[in-house]
Amino acid sequence: MKPDIQPNESVFTWAAPPLKFGVGAIDEIGAEAAATGASSCLVITDRGVRETGIPDRVQRSLTSAGLKAEVFDRVGVEPTDESIAEAVTFAREQDWDCFVAIGGGSAMDTAKAVNLLTTHPGELLDYVTPPIGEGTAPWLPLKPLIAVPTTAGTGSESTTICVIDFLGLHLKAGVSHPRLRPSLAVVDPRTLLTLPPEVTAASGMDVLSHALESYTAIRYDAKSAPEDPMRRPAFCGSNPISDVWCEMALGLVGKHLRAAVCNGRDLHARTQMALASTYAGTGFGNAGTHLPHANAYPVAGAVKDYQAAGYPPMPMVPHGQAVSVTAAAVFRWTYPADPERHLRAAELLSGRTFTRTDGAEALPGVLTELMADIGMPPGLRSFGYEEKNIGELVDGTMKQTRQMAVVPRPLDRAAAERIFLQSL
Amino acid sequence: MKPDIQPNESVFTWAAPPLKFGVGAIDEIGAEAAATGASSCLVITDRGVRETGIPDRVQRSLTSAGLKAEVFDRVGVEPTDESIAEAVTFAREQDWDCFVAIGGGSAMDTAKAVNLLTTHPGELLDYVTPPIGEGTAPWLPLKPLIAVPTTAGTGSESTTICVIDFLGLHLKAGVSHPRLRPSLAVVDPRTLLTLPPEVTAASGMDVLSHALESYTAIRYDAKSAPEDPMRRPAFCGSNPISDVWCEMALGLVGKHLRAAVCNGRDLHARTQMALASTYAGTGFGNAGTHLPHANAYPVAGAVKDYQAAGYPPMPMVPHGQAVSVTAAAVFRWTYPADPERHLRAAELLSGRTFTRTDGAEALPGVLTELMADIGMPPGLRSFGYEEKNIGELVDGTMKQTRQMAVVPRPLDRAAAERIFLQSL
Repeated sequence: MKPDIQPNESVFTWAAPPLKFGVGAIDEIGAEAAATGASSCLVITDRGVRETGIPDRVQRSLTSAGLKAEVFDRVGVEPTDESIAEAVTFAREQDWDCFVAIGGGSAMDTAKAVNLLTTHPGELLDYVTPPIGEGTAPWLPLKPLIAVPTTAGTGSESTTICVIDFLGLHLKAGVSHPRLRPSLAVVDPRTLLTLPPEVTAASGMDVLSHALESYTAIRYDAKSAPEDPMRRPAFCGSNPISDVWCEMALGLVGKHLRAAVCNGRDLHARTQMALASTYAGTGFGNAGTHLPHANAYPVAGAVKDYQAAGYPPMPMVPHGQAVSVTAAAVFRWTYPADPERHLRAAELLSGRTFTRTDGAEALPGVLTELMADIGMPPGLRSFGYEEKNIGELVDGTMKQTRQMAVVPRPLDRAAAERIFLQSL
Repeated sequence: MKPDIQPNESVFTWAAPPLKFGVGAIDEIGAEAAATGASSCLVITDRGVRETGIPDRVQRSLTSAGLKAEVFDRVGVEPTDESIAEAVTFAREQDWDCFVAIGGGSAMDTAKAVNLLTTHPGELLDYVTPPIGEGTAPWLPLKPLIAVPTTAGTGSESTTICVIDFLGLHLKAGVSHPRLRPSLAVVDPRTLLTLPPEVTAASGMDVLSHALESYTAIRYDAKSAPEDPMRRPAFCGSNPISDVWCEMALGLVGKHLRAAVCNGRDLHARTQMALASTYAGTGFGNAGTHLPHANAYPVAGAVKDYQAAGYPPMPMVPHGQAVSVTAAAVFRWTYPADPERHLRAAELLSGRTFTRTDGAEALPGVLTELMADIGMPPGLRSFGYEEKNIGELVDGTMKQTRQMAVVPRPLDRAAAERIFLQSL
């Protein structure tokens, strides 16, 4: 008999791949791949990253370690079903014992899909979460996948998720399964030195947003227990482990993001931002993102002709810009859910002291100040949105059920509209 | 050509198994085991833990999930080659798809050995680190091993290490390999409620010592780079990730250990101590322990007839007592290596403020106070040691090469003798 009062959740989960961090770490990839027993390895990257020379350096590390290695550099700027199909077709032409993904979320998500579809039959939609796909769970072991993030932002090196833009369906959808998680994350701060300022800024805001959203997400033990503990939602809510990492990441972003944007060659600032991003991935990856990320999907998805400086010439709102454009308004609205936490976040980001007298405006003020300092677009109008688009954006937000589950206070359309209006 | 000046290390590594934490977590073990595809499972524990009813509860969880499950409860209080041989013989009688270890370090280390020797041929010495053993690396996948720590102390649920007392050889030796790491750690604070006060105190001091030693260990980038990056030492030294977790663990131990010892039914204190122990395992497991742990081996190994209250009636210095008995003297001696860190640790443990004026005595003072409050033996004389035994103890300490590599200042026999003398 189902109890009248469903008990509260009392359990949280946490997982992250092993990590190798530091200057020179990428030169150990050959040895790491060889240690898995592999004799062949496909490096998956995009053309922009290839121009930095990093993928070829990794290829040399692999061949020095006795592996046959090739580089596939045609990862899409935003991975689509078509760009992934191209990568899969390429990868299926030979047998690969392991994969190395080098780049941002696009390269790592593509590599996860390639790993899945070279170890399992069928196509991507077979594995995509229902109702869009079949939701088949991978049933075979995948190959070792070494993930090398080069943007200090995405956290994809630590997650089980691969997000794809299905062009024909006009929507983004994901495959998520523990078997997709990379087997090793290799973070080398030197790989960040050539990242353009605009990409540094947007990626840094993505780290910040991961940390702020996880920190203010609904607490894991302040929601109902799942009926089936093996079907917990992907996001478990804020918890004592993720909180520690979030606070650390916020402190690092507050201290070092400006310097990394102003002078990309500042290895100390780059190292601290790489650490902040690593904290996001390893520390609070599964606590959960909420409203800023939910808003980011329609903001990025409905883009018309905005082109971001520092990015490839195509209409696109970079993820870090899309998540941060509504952040100030979101955290003004979530403030009552936990005032102390919002003030603490503002303190960590700014190095200043705030009290309840500063109230709901403290954190939005700090965010606005930081975004101005690093040249982030200040509002939705920068991307070409106006009042008349807000209904469409709200529709998109309300569909993001994964994020909605950990928003720290009940969200209705009116509140979502107000947030978008404030963010224009 | 080898450079004249070997460069400094610039890379650190980090790894931990997935974690499930919270009240009720142990009741999900059946579902977790079933999710690995297993149809049979051996629960490995000791008689004392079995009397708490936890192993049988887990067995019911496993059978409810459709698995064949048995409980082996003859794990030794301190695992020896003989007690492990008995467990291995039992386990080899049938095919097991997975293992669950429930207990302290003894149960978890025994389960690691059983997992190794039911998936690989030969005997334990084949896999023990040379020169004692053959040092063969496991070359086959091991079975899933779910580790359920019930003492909030050891951290073995997160490590790749299994330490065994070789009775015939009169020494302790270890097997360590990434394949030995449990595949899941399940921490349920309720399993701690019946832990006797003396065991709570000693286990808590073990957590504290892990945190303090990792926090004050030599910095990863303040030592030479390894000639072969794939043969880094097991302990990589203090680093920005382990530091965070050490600070958190020290704060929790300082706040909650006394309450957990005074009233074992205090679920809040138990939960915070379980978290502190988890931080030790997941956060700084491979930063490194140094001198207090190195001293603990001879202190425990040379015991004559000391029997610890709350423990089985046999001559034994519990690990937590052995590591903490020299801690005050050790940290007085390591103070010059990093005064700020020692003062910060004293602050985290005590909630008080210390300055350079307090100097080297601040941390020893805080430790002595805590140990008195929770009834820990104050010195080596409690275990029956006298001045005349110190030479033998120093001999034992100087052999612990793994720990010696991360002691934060050069240790000679005279310094080791002084530390033991101060600890009498």
